Amino acid sequence: MKELKIFAGRSHPELAREICAHVGVEPGQISFVTFSNENLKIKIEENVRECDVFVIQTSCSPVHDHLLELLIMIDALKYASAARITAVLPYYPYVRSDKKDEPRISVTARLVADLLQTAGAHRILTMNLHASQIVGFSHIPVDHLDGIPVICDYLKTQPLENFAAVATDVGRAKVTEAYARRLHMPVVILDKRRYADDEKAVIRHVIGDVSGKNAIFFDDEILTGGSIFAGIDVLRERGAMHFKAACVHGVLARDAVTRLENSVLEELVITNTLPQRQTSPKIKTRSIAQLFGEAIKAIHTGSSVSRLFS
Amino acid sequence: MKELKIFAGRSHPELAREICAHVGVEPGQISFVTFSNENLKIKIEENVRECDVFVIQTSCSPVHDHLLELLIMIDALKYASAARITAVLPYYPYVRSDKKDEPRISVTARLVADLLQTAGAHRILTMNLHASQIVGFSHIPVDHLDGIPVICDYLKTQPLENFAAVATDVGRAKVTEAYARRLHMPVVILDKRRYADDEKAVIRHVIGDVSGKNAIFFDDEILTGGSIFAGIDVLRERGAMHFKAACVHGVLARDAVTRLENSVLEELVITNTLPQRQTSPKIKTRSIAQLFGEAIKAIHTGSSVSRLFS
Amino acid sequence: MKELKIFAGRSHPELAREICAHVGVEPGQISFVTFSNENLKIKIEENVRECDVFVIQTSCSPVHDHLLELLIMIDALKYASAARITAVLPYYPYVRSDKKDEPRISVTARLVADLLQTAGAHRILTMNLHASQIVGFSHIPVDHLDGIPVICDYLKTQPLENFAAVATDVGRAKVTEAYARRLHMPVVILDKRRYADDEKAVIRHVIGDVSGKNAIFFDDEILTGGSIFAGIDVLRERGAMHFKAACVHGVLARDAVTRLENSVLEELVITNTLPQRQTSPKIKTRSIAQLFGEAIKAIHTGSSVSRLFS
Amino acid sequence: MKELKIFAGRSHPELAREICAHVGVEPGQISFVTFSNENLKIKIEENVRECDVFVIQTSCSPVHDHLLELLIMIDALKYASAARITAVLPYYPYVRSDKKDEPRISVTARLVADLLQTAGAHRILTMNLHASQIVGFSHIPVDHLDGIPVICDYLKTQPLENFAAVATDVGRAKVTEAYARRLHMPVVILDKRRYADDEKAVIRHVIGDVSGKNAIFFDDEILTGGSIFAGIDVLRERGAMHFKAACVHGVLARDAVTRLENSVLEELVITNTLPQRQTSPKIKTRSIAQLFGEAIKAIHTGSSVSRLFS
Amino acid sequence: MKELKIFAGRSHPELAREICAHVGVEPGQISFVTFSNENLKIKIEENVRECDVFVIQTSCSPVHDHLLELLIMIDALKYASAARITAVLPYYPYVRSDKKDEPRISVTARLVADLLQTAGAHRILTMNLHASQIVGFSHIPVDHLDGIPVICDYLKTQPLENFAAVATDVGRAKVTEAYARRLHMPVVILDKRRYADDEKAVIRHVIGDVSGKNAIFFDDEILTGGSIFAGIDVLRERGAMHFKAACVHGVLARDAVTRLENSVLEELVITNTLPQRQTSPKIKTRSIAQLFGEAIKAIHTGSSVSRLFS
Amino acid sequence: MKELKIFAGRSHPELAREICAHVGVEPGQISFVTFSNENLKIKIEENVRECDVFVIQTSCSPVHDHLLELLIMIDALKYASAARITAVLPYYPYVRSDKKDEPRISVTARLVADLLQTAGAHRILTMNLHASQIVGFSHIPVDHLDGIPVICDYLKTQPLENFAAVATDVGRAKVTEAYARRLHMPVVILDKRRYADDEKAVIRHVIGDVSGKNAIFFDDEILTGGSIFAGIDVLRERGAMHFKAACVHGVLARDAVTRLENSVLEELVITNTLPQRQTSPKIKTRSIAQLFGEAIKAIHTGSSVSRLFS
Repeated sequence: MKELKIFAGRSHPELAREICAHVGVEPGQISFVTFSNENLKIKIEENVRECDVFVIQTSCSPVHDHLLELLIMIDALKYASAARITAVLPYYPYVRSDKKDEPRISVTARLVADLLQTAGAHRILTMNLHASQIVGFSHIPVDHLDGIPVICDYLKTQPLENFAAVATDVGRAKVTEAYARRLHMPVVILDKRRYADDEKAVIRHVIGDVSGKNAIFFDDEILTGGSIFAGIDVLRERGAMHFKAACVHGVLARDAVTRLENSVLEELVITNTLPQRQTSPKIKTRSIAQLFGEAIKAIHTGSSVSRLFS
Repeated sequence: MKELKIFAGRSHPELAREICAHVGVEPGQISFVTFSNENLKIKIEENVRECDVFVIQTSCSPVHDHLLELLIMIDALKYASAARITAVLPYYPYVRSDKKDEPRISVTARLVADLLQTAGAHRILTMNLHASQIVGFSHIPVDHLDGIPVICDYLKTQPLENFAAVATDVGRAKVTEAYARRLHMPVVILDKRRYADDEKAVIRHVIGDVSGKNAIFFDDEILTGGSIFAGIDVLRERGAMHFKAACVHGVLARDAVTRLENSVLEELVITNTLPQRQTSPKIKTRSIAQLFGEAIKAIHTGSSVSRLFS
Repeated sequence: MKELKIFAGRSHPELAREICAHVGVEPGQISFVTFSNENLKIKIEENVRECDVFVIQTSCSPVHDHLLELLIMIDALKYASAARITAVLPYYPYVRSDKKDEPRISVTARLVADLLQTAGAHRILTMNLHASQIVGFSHIPVDHLDGIPVICDYLKTQPLENFAAVATDVGRAKVTEAYARRLHMPVVILDKRRYADDEKAVIRHVIGDVSGKNAIFFDDEILTGGSIFAGIDVLRERGAMHFKAACVHGVLARDAVTRLENSVLEELVITNTLPQRQTSPKIKTRSIAQLFGEAIKAIHTGSSVSRLFS
Repeated sequence: MKELKIFAGRSHPELAREICAHVGVEPGQISFVTFSNENLKIKIEENVRECDVFVIQTSCSPVHDHLLELLIMIDALKYASAARITAVLPYYPYVRSDKKDEPRISVTARLVADLLQTAGAHRILTMNLHASQIVGFSHIPVDHLDGIPVICDYLKTQPLENFAAVATDVGRAKVTEAYARRLHMPVVILDKRRYADDEKAVIRHVIGDVSGKNAIFFDDEILTGGSIFAGIDVLRERGAMHFKAACVHGVLARDAVTRLENSVLEELVITNTLPQRQTSPKIKTRSIAQLFGEAIKAIHTGSSVSRLFS
Repeated sequence: MKELKIFAGRSHPELAREICAHVGVEPGQISFVTFSNENLKIKIEENVRECDVFVIQTSCSPVHDHLLELLIMIDALKYASAARITAVLPYYPYVRSDKKDEPRISVTARLVADLLQTAGAHRILTMNLHASQIVGFSHIPVDHLDGIPVICDYLKTQPLENFAAVATDVGRAKVTEAYARRLHMPVVILDKRRYADDEKAVIRHVIGDVSGKNAIFFDDEILTGGSIFAGIDVLRERGAMHFKAACVHGVLARDAVTRLENSVLEELVITNTLPQRQTSPKIKTRSIAQLFGEAIKAIHTGSSVSRLFS
Repeated sequence: MKELKIFAGRSHPELAREICAHVGVEPGQISFVTFSNENLKIKIEENVRECDVFVIQTSCSPVHDHLLELLIMIDALKYASAARITAVLPYYPYVRSDKKDEPRISVTARLVADLLQTAGAHRILTMNLHASQIVGFSHIPVDHLDGIPVICDYLKTQPLENFAAVATDVGRAKVTEAYARRLHMPVVILDKRRYADDEKAVIRHVIGDVSGKNAIFFDDEILTGGSIFAGIDVLRERGAMHFKAACVHGVLARDAVTRLENSVLEELVITNTLPQRQTSPKIKTRSIAQLFGEAIKAIHTGSSVSRLFS
């Protein structure tokens, strides 16, 4: 009945192409003009009336440009009479702004959900939110994909004897456990604390034993890698030997890749939810395009998405 | 300008009276009639036009009766022209249904926020949500009080040498760390895992060292105490000696108090966010009425609520 | 296009099965877990994406548990991406709370409509609302079935010579006339009045003549039967001889059935919009399952529902 | 704080002036221009920022012009930054379109509530709705005044021996009883029925006894008086002697006043919720301006409106 | 899938019939009853469940009756379960009330969009809005047809040598240019100014040269023709010789046709977006029924509407 | 009652300071942190409960960063319980995206209004929108200030004999006339046309006479000045001698200032709604801070804003 169409913002064209190829459709025709005042004119260049439209945009630099571009695309599609618009967000914008841990700050991840709905999105398709509660921020259905099996399927092919799964913070223990369970590893947690508001958090304890073991750091995302590099220093003192890391979202901001290159970290496994400006032989990237493609097909045909997880 | 009025549902009259006393107002006149068909007629028995109304209702048994009672009270107040209605929820209903960890289930904690707003609430005042992300479920402002300092202030007066703070699950490591930081304790985490969907989760590892130590379990709430009692067994095998527990919300469902009485758990510290059907000399209850009272006064006068946390 | 699925809450499984059988579908797979804190986990156990879903829940004891169960089911279905959700309410919750006849009370029947829409219902299918204006409380379409013909079709097969249709109150004259018109009976009305607010309403007049006649009481629902039993006493004094009663919704709360057994009321005709805890040979129950089944099929296929009334 | 201002539409300037005089304010400055294309330009001619504004408009001929005029006034006031806008509707528009008694018709009384809220009204103040359920159509608070005591206070000063209160239809029995209770009269009901859809409803029965009595017809409104004049014919046959009538809203459409003049009806008591194009010595009009004035003052000051009813 | 149905209000039955004929459907069965109190009962006389319904109503005298009729039709269709409702507005109501050029007036064209959405419209189909920004007033998609090519196609068949396109005001220069561009004419603009608020606007300048030329006035609508007749006087003084005029919407209010008859204006070209009470041999009317018919078909089938413009 | 507070985004701190100084308040304490992933953490550093808050943010480079910053500020203020939030937008974001002049594009100026309301803004205060219809895009009240008198007051002090007001396009004739009326100048309009879609618009006609005159270009904003520089070339050919320009919003993107420096344009008058990266002795800037300051005070105190225009 309704035709499936996929339009891509300009954040991550390679991933969009890969997803389209998997789904078996051509990317929708769309043009972007940036006027001299930085305002965007986005024109959907083909008829979308009564179509089932998916808009792919990940949240990478320049973050705000990509977010506004997404909102304007959705608005244009809505008033162009698309039947249904699904925002496909491999890496959800402002995903870490998910709570009010200080007074008078914004839970921006919720604001993002509100803005998407206001612009006209009917659904969200995303992957590994920083906290699983974030699906509750949205009043439109969210399909929440899990990239951890993709990472673990790769790791299972690698020699990982005597490795412990390390969380860089007690707040990340749960996500670390999700990897550890699949890989049958013990969990070790770095206990960072700050005793006064103006104090910097430092690692005060290591919960669990790493002496004579190897350590693999797990998380949903790695920003600059600072917590991992600090963790390595502490763990080496306590006798850990080899170090790896893995996460779904390789943000790798600032000089993360350079620091990785120069560190004792031997391997970093990530997925391609985000484009990478810089590469390194130490980085192994697994693609989640097939997972997104299957989810898009399932949403379009009304078949089960949760089935993809098993 | 607007007069402050407090109305209490029938869930926890003692706490309501204590809060009113602290604020310095009489509880608002209200009558409840339950018809033979179980339908409620709730009548606000005094004028509330242009008043700043607070409705106190905690989520205790019978949970659904109390929730509907709350929604009907708010609806009656709205159409009786109250200027502002704040739902005061010492224990938030369905607080643990905060994520979609299985397909096709409800994030009921979010539904509750939606129902409160639909009924006419303008604000929510609550305490220690199971996950701090839950404030993002609401499109009306939430003031989120913290009862942990009340617990810790008491514990600081007790002899607690050689105690470790124990989390019964990696997912509770973060809240446990919030207590441990205030009490300068190390953290130990019980790592429960299930390797197949139809398997029961069992404690497979203890992360951290408890040999020769005492253990105090911390959490935001204790339901039946099952995780704690299972944890005690494991920790005793590993050499732990004395056991205590503390939480903000003492749900203590089923035979929790009887099991507590019969266990080696020496003390359980809770607050009075919930009424208790059964008492025990092992239970120490600290009151959060003053904290709620101060928050209500701050909301009414427009002074800072976050100031109460420092 | 969209598949029709029916899910049943736990209020009235017999009726749900009967409706499903009439429609020719199996009831949808759904599981209910009640945790120790009385919170419900409801899981839709089959894919409902893009389906046309009907949720059957009548309003019977425990009323609030069934209402919350309904709201949570709808919420789960909404976020499970059901295309359309129709709340099928054989007996509408809080149907008698339909006006503000005292200051500062809730029009709870309207609140129920709001809560259903907030949870995610797109339509309501119900029967014999206490006042026909109640359809106007809902901002989603309501199909309002009429069970009176089902009752009357049965009564037409019974000997009913010399019977008058009796309304127990002037406010029920209109619904009584709807039965009387079909059965070609005269109408008699009991005029209850209270002259002061704190006075109990008593029958002060009988409008119309019953001397030497038989009386059959009609209404949309019978709660405890108190008005009918009081009416019988008054009418016997005025010479009425035999007594029957009929209504669509047999709430029959408290000891209604026992009182019926012990009374001179010879027969009570009801439908099965509500389950009955207690039976009596005096009670004749007619099924409205076929009517609901036909309505569900008509809604699903887009054929006329009003056609079912003629 | 907020200043009370009253603006009047052009439907009933006399009533508006009377209400303003009672409240003690000058009517707000406002200008109306009707362009050659019948479009209205309504300009609020004085500052209303942060004011508490009441807009008086009754629903009289031309009904649609007055309704649009009201909506445009409210819209202008909203965007002129009025703090609160109360629509004062002595006679509510489309009040009789309150149910869906035929398929595919509009419950227009509910649509009117929706339109008022969309235009920007925050409250409604009205009188004697055709059914008290109509307050439930509105998602903004409704203050529902009662003009029956005003009518009855006058009738109590008149000789009314041996009078019965007559309802022209079973559906009007309840409102008739509201008058009868205050005047200690028995109730008589005319039972109109139609046995086929294409048949005209005719009076088939008189419920109650009128022989040798006088009859006073009561209702919330009288449209053309057709039901009353038909009722008189039937009641005279059954021995009734003198005839009066009373209602709150004297719509008196078409040739109602002429027919009244030429009939045996001796007196008609109405209020001034509607302007009258034609007068008759048989018509007694009681003013409800004071009641509206008191309600406006109570709403403005936040004192109880229900207090006005006792 | 969904059946296309067209229902027509009573504003312009000829146009509705012409559109239906073009689309190839019979007008939907609908009945209108006006009660003695001027209230409308509108009944959709055929099943519309799951249908794709278009409601045609233009904004002509009596403007407010037609607008309310439209809103009530839409409300009836919504609750009769139409799948989609498109308001087809050949001449949009209150289209000139599109800005707040005086304090405390209503942007009524926006209010109209809000009222349509509240009543239940999902889309708007209209033609030549007074300002193209008006599409932004609506939160439902608007298809905005252009009747200027229809006018110009006719004019291209006429002798129009030495004609200049005249705008009666600088604010109308842009729309005049849209005609002029298609007809390759120069533009002349009458510069009306008022230097004080209480002064009437008079033509103070003629921008561009008309000496020895002929003048054709262009606009989106002509109300009474006053600006054109005043313009003719000024242009004749400056040497213009022959005069014509053209617009899409021939409102022609008051005595516009009589004045046209008596003026030197030789021809007026309009479309049939509005019915005409009065005719004149000077008026040439071109039909836009085909354009609306094509747009309705495109909306129904999901094919491109913008394609119709090229 | 409610305290006035002003918070400034980081787009134009000088203007914010100037406005605060005029209002007589200190700018509110607020902190901005940009994380390594470009996400913003904005913290309102002082209590704003029940305050009347104004947030100043103009739309300048980087446009999207400033817009998101504004939305996050408003969200933070909303959940920090500000009583009222007014978005103060000296130059409104995406103001020129105000219509759908091509298929399937976004009316982004309307989307911006929607986003502001979603984030929590209650009012908008802005200046010289590109089209006055844009106020209708917002469902929250808009105060629309006019900077043209500020420009004209300056120009009246300058020698401007024999100057004509020039619009660079027929679509800008109306705004040009607004300047011309105040300065008693004739209007000249450049008629740019494109006869095919893929053709560039070029000036084809000059409407009005400039021979021997001087020309001053007027508009609401100047982007790159391209239209003006092209216009100068055409007008010089037709005999114009001296050239000036004036506008409210000096966007002056790309190399506008350099081109101005090198051109025959003698003077450019602008206001300070936007910060300038580059200066030139040819640019005269008039401040609108006082106008915004007065408007903020009027909004806060509920006095008339339109009064500021006279």
